[in-house]
Amino acid sequence: MATLLNNQMLHGGDYNPDQWLDRPDILKKDIELMKQAHVNCVSVGIFAWSSLEPEEGHYTFGWLKDVIDTLYSNGIYTVLATPSGARPTWMAHKYPEVLRVDQTLHRNHMGGRHNHCYTSPIYRQKVWEMDKRLAEAFGKHPGVLLWHLSNEYGGACYCPLCQAEFRSWLKEKYGTLDALNKAWWTAFWSHTYTDWEQVEAPGPRGEELLHGLVLDWRRFVTARTVDFCSWEKQAVRAGGSDLPVTTNMMGFYYDLDYTKFKDVVDIVSWDNYPNWRGEASDVDTAIHTAATHDLMRCVQHEPFLMMENTPSQVNWHSVNRLKAPGMHELASLQAVAHGSNSVQYFQWRQSRGASEKFHGAVIDHYGESDTRVFQEVTHVGERLEGLSALCHANVQPQVAILFDRENEWALDAACGPRNGAMHYEQTMESHYQAFWRMGINVDLISEEDDLSDYRLVIAPMLYLHRAGIADKLRDFVAGGGTLVGTYWSGLVDENDLCFEGPTPGGNLTDVYGLRTEEIDGLRDEDCNHMIWNGKTYQLRELCELVRPKDAKTLAIYSDDFYAGKSVLTVNRFGKGYAYFLASRAEDSFYRDFYRLLIEQVGVTPVLGKTELPEGVTASKRTAKDGRAFIIVQNYTSKTVCFPLENPLTNLENGQAGDSLTLQPYGVMFLSE
Amino acid sequence: MATLLNNQMLHGGDYNPDQWLDRPDILKKDIELMKQAHVNCVSVGIFAWSSLEPEEGHYTFGWLKDVIDTLYSNGIYTVLATPSGARPTWMAHKYPEVLRVDQTLHRNHMGGRHNHCYTSPIYRQKVWEMDKRLAEAFGKHPGVLLWHLSNEYGGACYCPLCQAEFRSWLKEKYGTLDALNKAWWTAFWSHTYTDWEQVEAPGPRGEELLHGLVLDWRRFVTARTVDFCSWEKQAVRAGGSDLPVTTNMMGFYYDLDYTKFKDVVDIVSWDNYPNWRGEASDVDTAIHTAATHDLMRCVQHEPFLMMENTPSQVNWHSVNRLKAPGMHELASLQAVAHGSNSVQYFQWRQSRGASEKFHGAVIDHYGESDTRVFQEVTHVGERLEGLSALCHANVQPQVAILFDRENEWALDAACGPRNGAMHYEQTMESHYQAFWRMGINVDLISEEDDLSDYRLVIAPMLYLHRAGIADKLRDFVAGGGTLVGTYWSGLVDENDLCFEGPTPGGNLTDVYGLRTEEIDGLRDEDCNHMIWNGKTYQLRELCELVRPKDAKTLAIYSDDFYAGKSVLTVNRFGKGYAYFLASRAEDSFYRDFYRLLIEQVGVTPVLGKTELPEGVTASKRTAKDGRAFIIVQNYTSKTVCFPLENPLTNLENGQAGDSLTLQPYGVMFLSE
Amino acid sequence: MATLLNNQMLHGGDYNPDQWLDRPDILKKDIELMKQAHVNCVSVGIFAWSSLEPEEGHYTFGWLKDVIDTLYSNGIYTVLATPSGARPTWMAHKYPEVLRVDQTLHRNHMGGRHNHCYTSPIYRQKVWEMDKRLAEAFGKHPGVLLWHLSNEYGGACYCPLCQAEFRSWLKEKYGTLDALNKAWWTAFWSHTYTDWEQVEAPGPRGEELLHGLVLDWRRFVTARTVDFCSWEKQAVRAGGSDLPVTTNMMGFYYDLDYTKFKDVVDIVSWDNYPNWRGEASDVDTAIHTAATHDLMRCVQHEPFLMMENTPSQVNWHSVNRLKAPGMHELASLQAVAHGSNSVQYFQWRQSRGASEKFHGAVIDHYGESDTRVFQEVTHVGERLEGLSALCHANVQPQVAILFDRENEWALDAACGPRNGAMHYEQTMESHYQAFWRMGINVDLISEEDDLSDYRLVIAPMLYLHRAGIADKLRDFVAGGGTLVGTYWSGLVDENDLCFEGPTPGGNLTDVYGLRTEEIDGLRDEDCNHMIWNGKTYQLRELCELVRPKDAKTLAIYSDDFYAGKSVLTVNRFGKGYAYFLASRAEDSFYRDFYRLLIEQVGVTPVLGKTELPEGVTASKRTAKDGRAFIIVQNYTSKTVCFPLENPLTNLENGQAGDSLTLQPYGVMFLSE
Repeated sequence: MATLLNNQMLHGGDYNPDQWLDRPDILKKDIELMKQAHVNCVSVGIFAWSSLEPEEGHYTFGWLKDVIDTLYSNGIYTVLATPSGARPTWMAHKYPEVLRVDQTLHRNHMGGRHNHCYTSPIYRQKVWEMDKRLAEAFGKHPGVLLWHLSNEYGGACYCPLCQAEFRSWLKEKYGTLDALNKAWWTAFWSHTYTDWEQVEAPGPRGEELLHGLVLDWRRFVTARTVDFCSWEKQAVRAGGSDLPVTTNMMGFYYDLDYTKFKDVVDIVSWDNYPNWRGEASDVDTAIHTAATHDLMRCVQHEPFLMMENTPSQVNWHSVNRLKAPGMHELASLQAVAHGSNSVQYFQWRQSRGASEKFHGAVIDHYGESDTRVFQEVTHVGERLEGLSALCHANVQPQVAILFDRENEWALDAACGPRNGAMHYEQTMESHYQAFWRMGINVDLISEEDDLSDYRLVIAPMLYLHRAGIADKLRDFVAGGGTLVGTYWSGLVDENDLCFEGPTPGGNLTDVYGLRTEEIDGLRDEDCNHMIWNGKTYQLRELCELVRPKDAKTLAIYSDDFYAGKSVLTVNRFGKGYAYFLASRAEDSFYRDFYRLLIEQVGVTPVLGKTELPEGVTASKRTAKDGRAFIIVQNYTSKTVCFPLENPLTNLENGQAGDSLTLQPYGVMFLSE
Repeated sequence: MATLLNNQMLHGGDYNPDQWLDRPDILKKDIELMKQAHVNCVSVGIFAWSSLEPEEGHYTFGWLKDVIDTLYSNGIYTVLATPSGARPTWMAHKYPEVLRVDQTLHRNHMGGRHNHCYTSPIYRQKVWEMDKRLAEAFGKHPGVLLWHLSNEYGGACYCPLCQAEFRSWLKEKYGTLDALNKAWWTAFWSHTYTDWEQVEAPGPRGEELLHGLVLDWRRFVTARTVDFCSWEKQAVRAGGSDLPVTTNMMGFYYDLDYTKFKDVVDIVSWDNYPNWRGEASDVDTAIHTAATHDLMRCVQHEPFLMMENTPSQVNWHSVNRLKAPGMHELASLQAVAHGSNSVQYFQWRQSRGASEKFHGAVIDHYGESDTRVFQEVTHVGERLEGLSALCHANVQPQVAILFDRENEWALDAACGPRNGAMHYEQTMESHYQAFWRMGINVDLISEEDDLSDYRLVIAPMLYLHRAGIADKLRDFVAGGGTLVGTYWSGLVDENDLCFEGPTPGGNLTDVYGLRTEEIDGLRDEDCNHMIWNGKTYQLRELCELVRPKDAKTLAIYSDDFYAGKSVLTVNRFGKGYAYFLASRAEDSFYRDFYRLLIEQVGVTPVLGKTELPEGVTASKRTAKDGRAFIIVQNYTSKTVCFPLENPLTNLENGQAGDSLTLQPYGVMFLSE
Repeated sequence: MATLLNNQMLHGGDYNPDQWLDRPDILKKDIELMKQAHVNCVSVGIFAWSSLEPEEGHYTFGWLKDVIDTLYSNGIYTVLATPSGARPTWMAHKYPEVLRVDQTLHRNHMGGRHNHCYTSPIYRQKVWEMDKRLAEAFGKHPGVLLWHLSNEYGGACYCPLCQAEFRSWLKEKYGTLDALNKAWWTAFWSHTYTDWEQVEAPGPRGEELLHGLVLDWRRFVTARTVDFCSWEKQAVRAGGSDLPVTTNMMGFYYDLDYTKFKDVVDIVSWDNYPNWRGEASDVDTAIHTAATHDLMRCVQHEPFLMMENTPSQVNWHSVNRLKAPGMHELASLQAVAHGSNSVQYFQWRQSRGASEKFHGAVIDHYGESDTRVFQEVTHVGERLEGLSALCHANVQPQVAILFDRENEWALDAACGPRNGAMHYEQTMESHYQAFWRMGINVDLISEEDDLSDYRLVIAPMLYLHRAGIADKLRDFVAGGGTLVGTYWSGLVDENDLCFEGPTPGGNLTDVYGLRTEEIDGLRDEDCNHMIWNGKTYQLRELCELVRPKDAKTLAIYSDDFYAGKSVLTVNRFGKGYAYFLASRAEDSFYRDFYRLLIEQVGVTPVLGKTELPEGVTASKRTAKDGRAFIIVQNYTSKTVCFPLENPLTNLENGQAGDSLTLQPYGVMFLSE
């Protein structure tokens, strides 16, 4: 990543002066308070189309110039947004085609945010014109750092134009209808297509049961969205701006495969809204958030920006909690620990009306700085100023977990042993939490990624094989790597068509030394058990029955008619080892299992042999010159104190020591 | 209220002879049985359009004349309905515009009850013609007491005609689009309107997130319904009838603000369907029903009519219980205790078919009088004949709880700390139950009401300020009144736009002597606590954090990171006191708190210092000459006996005594 | 039933070679494996329209001929399907009218299975042409056994053509609108029809509250489906084929009254998918499945075919369990025990793609015979070869339970004491299980059936009277039969119009010797009790209050305000007895009650006085020559052993004995 702003950590957030143009007193106070809060950049212009082009063809950029100039003259930089995240009312009213058609095939009316067609020629032309003009006006402004293309791209449109694009995309992919019919197995229920015009997007009023169609439609939606993002990038380039571009992603957002954006954006950024003090414990929320940061970092395997987070509470959960003192700072710096070069907020100042008027903001309706929230934000700003050294340092794990969006779409769409409850993401997190608790960084990678830099690769529920993953895993193990695979793996090819012959298909039965035969779906309230290494662990959800050939059985099922059959096996293959786990185990199993396994494969925790207290973790960013920064975080409401294996130096105050004391919700930056 | 029928209590119900016109034997038996049951009035013609105008322009009023004449000659009076509660099939078929368009913007087909557009010129013209002709025919008939306009007005229509009316209503209200854009904060998400034609009703296919739009649409729906009701009143007046008019309301029905009907109807009436022996305890059901009667009475602050209740069970709850012996009489007379001058039923005789054929009725399909239900109805009729003295007596509370429908709409629509679970009505009832259990009458008033007659005003969750309420509350306290306010108050102006500066806004921070800063949303399963007066009380749902200035802290939070902060405060302001409760407490708190508070403010229970047993309450109606009637009710299945502070006389048997014995589900009328 | 295939039990399943036409290796292997698995027939052509007519008017039957010929030459017979269960894509694309309109009045797009209008002239013509040509081509082929018309007929279409047919059907039924208006009680809410064109199907956008309309629409949907089935039968007859026809039904499928198919199909067949190891216990699942077999057998009171069941697990429950070893065999032979002459599977070979690719099949994707599933299927095939003697033997019960689909539709549609939770089917099963546990066969009959062959008739919740049922019951009792009736009986006539006068109406009050007055709906968590024969039983859901006249009270309510009132009565009427049960009792009551009652009425269990262990039952098929076959089944995972009253001979190994030992999930065929 090209670093921004002279290698400073960014501190700022979404700023919507277009909502306050008739209030110069407010705009003036904003600048004063930003400086007070150590803000060095703000994101401007998101959703500002109505102010930038209040009527068709009438552009009013003057206010924006004033805002950017004023900010710059006060030392505050601008992340400039294109306003395509919501179209103005006049446009929707005049050109209904810019509005989406939903899955029931009705055209929406004006409203909401994501309610525009990514195909509509009129919408594309209006966006191009706007983006190009913004680039011409501000693309070389010294106060502008970065383009923020649109906002949280998402959703899909089912209009005739999009459906025609879908057919073109399919023609490109399959060449012939015969190939498509085979790939989707359309002979089932006489769904064979005899004319491309017969192909329609999946939906509740038409076809939802052809898995290949469902999967390809999801791929198309990502491709269409990437294409639109690329269109906006081209528009700002056509306007003469060479500034880097980003678009704010949404972590584990289900409907897009963000890995497909890696070549379009120059920097990855994302919006982070963990539900602290929510239904999950704060430690579980921390683990989930850590995984999300890792997922976002692995889009480009580079540092990223946390483009949004709330300085206090949100207003869109069913129940919205306040953060306890310290939690905001901890959550902000967790992002930095996992590779973020910024802490940015939504939003700077609360709106007075509409649906986000009670969403937390740095400045609330009260309007003054003597609030708890403002004080905590200010403290984060102060600390970030001391952390510039981390800007060029990246997280470099030796462990990878395969988490592939296309695999998830396919396994969720398939009708199988547990419909709608396969829990792919949660299963991945069951593996992930073991490493978080040991203080070991992990990459979350897709089947398209290279495996050669890792010592340990974990591939839970690798149902769908694509991008040559079977060969890559085979080579990885043969070359000395350690692989952990599980039930419900190697069942279908890239079009969700079942492999013939023994499974895990695609060449993995000899790697694991077994074949899989049947799988039992368990109700949520049921379980089986296994005994491994003298301890009993619960098994839930899915129990696969395998027939080991060369594999050695490490543990067996203890209940039901398949008691005594293998549930955990290992197989020597080439220079490496392949483990196979045939059921979903409780979390403690993964902790015990991976604690032993990392020793065998030679992976060392960030704090070495130091035993981390419950709720505490450590992460590491390493600069190109090898300098390493260790970030230790305490997600509990208690002060924790523990000895270190080797003395470390506090990066912020320079003190060295051989033990650590972290305040409740405390976070500490250390170097070796 | 002009009293009806020579100051007798009305006893009767909905009567649908139009369903039995081919059965003179049934019509004859009806009259006999009505007399046996002490029925003195029935409501006729509701839903009778098909019988009154079986084909367009062909009016057949003969049967109705026969019915009214026969009733009258048997001493039974008629409440005459306009039949607009459901249009006839021929009309819907010929003029689809009379049918509603729903929120998804599809036109309904013929069906149901509330399925006609209140704007449709054709529907209005047909209703006018019908109502006027009915008035001409029967508006001076000596047997007709009252006009029953339509039936349970409700629902909304989203057709183009209604949407055009909505725009006209908005133009009238805001004058300019600029004013509307500011009030609704449309700059948010570029929703700025540049042409009135762009404004649409809120809905799932368009805009639902502009709170100002959502609130104004709800106001418009009430305005449209009031306008339609007024149209019907004008039609009967045009037909030459000067009889009073009513329309049957539905208690806490969410979609209408009934206070806006107060100048249109001459008498308030409503339909009462408590769920006795349902999921809530009978005592809780009694409290809720009492509050509903009070709400309905406060539309005009006059006695009202209970236009419908079931003589046995309903058939539209998921589970429908029978009433235990005595419960029907108790529930009937509860209405009288709270200001009703009638006990009326839906319906007199069960229909043989369609969806209400198993709804309870005075006469069931069996058709004879030797049923438990008929016997109990008859006994109610007998007692009502002895209660004429109450007709001119009204309930006159010294305590008011602010329960404002517009406030509820706004706080439910806003995205905030607990979405969809703010529980405004239940919160009001938490305060209300304390008074019910002490035997103290309460008014439930809107922000438009005058406060000067009360000693104590309680304003829970007064989120939205309108109708000068802040000034009224300020003056009320300054003048010596006692105010109890709570969390989530004084946040927005009448358009749901947040106040700038400290809150409770609109001039109340100095009244309460504090400002509010943050609010924590609690999940249903979580709680905090406070200790007050030596007792611990649970706190739930919402915990607001306040910064007291002049206010004195009476109780503090005991848990969570805000343990130690104020949760209950009091402030002397002018000659009065303002209490502030920052969280929702369990019911027992309100009982203990208000028991002390009423002594301080000088409010006396109906039975003075008498300690009422659990499940027993007392209500009072006072005549203009000062004569007071006390109604004591026992909502338990046990006989209760307790001493009185002062001897009272049984109104029905003339016996005086210094203690009371009430049978299970017993009710007693006393005078001083 | 004409028996098929020289009186052999059929063993086979759905076979879809049209999905593998490009894979001769697969087709060849199929034949080998079928022979290995003792398969003697397969169902071909279901959903094959795309392969039979890939473009309009271009018929390609060659592959089908090859398949049938090859099967036949290998000793395997074909059940030949018409492909109308799903239309080909080209047809839906060219003629949208063949697609259904749903209840919201939107036309579907192409997709799914049941998505074609049964009225569309184009669809009917295309089906006729296809079926006739198939009959011409294969209707006399010696390898073809039976026509399989379409597949699992179901659902409804609301298009204008269907609605016009509905009106015609109503005209035929009622003659005049006046008759219809009376029958549906349309005066309610002014719904009176004045023109036939005003009548529309019930639906959420129109009318759903006229019970008569709702009931008649359901009847019409069955009539329309029967008409379509008959159309297909005529088409194959027009093609010159005299082979018997069947269509595969779906057991308790709610939306069709299968009794109306009895004169159209020559053999009843049905698809059996019990949820073994599901939420219910296996014993309860066995009881439900037994009842379903009995229901299907009673369509024609003849042996039937089990056209589908899964050889392993399904993939459409929320959670799909594996069957334990032995369960497949037991479940297969349970069908035979209740009258099936076949065990057939869906499907022979798993599809590689689309929504059923993980549905269990005899051959899975692995493709070889060394799987647990294949071995178990083969064993079933072996046993069936020894059971040919049963083909001509039928089940001949002396006990009947009235379970009438029209009655169920009516009582579910009515708004009454427990909306949406009347549990008619479960209530029937509460009675049924008592007989299953005693090893007594039962018929499940409709109100149209003759009662004269039974000794005991049970008529739970006989809400709606039609087909002269009241007179039939009266005559049955008068003639010496024993009747058990319950609450919620005899309330409405065949149009769901309430009887006037005392109930159970339609002439049954003197049969029962009482009248019913009120009914209390209980919440799921509540109960009442009765004491009968010294034991206490829970009562749930509904408690009716009756007024006995001549009836003798056998048990009373013990709780609530109606404690002491009759809950179980008996009345001598003519030569017989009529019992009345006023509430729903817990299952153990029915066991105790019927154990005594069968002795009184002279019904003997299949195994006489033998006490059956929990989870074990016995069924009997009797040939015309009087030879009886007894099938004993063990639904537990334990070996059971018990003595017999009289020695019996094992049909399969010829051994006689005076006790029985059944393996876990074991099943044994015995003769006297």
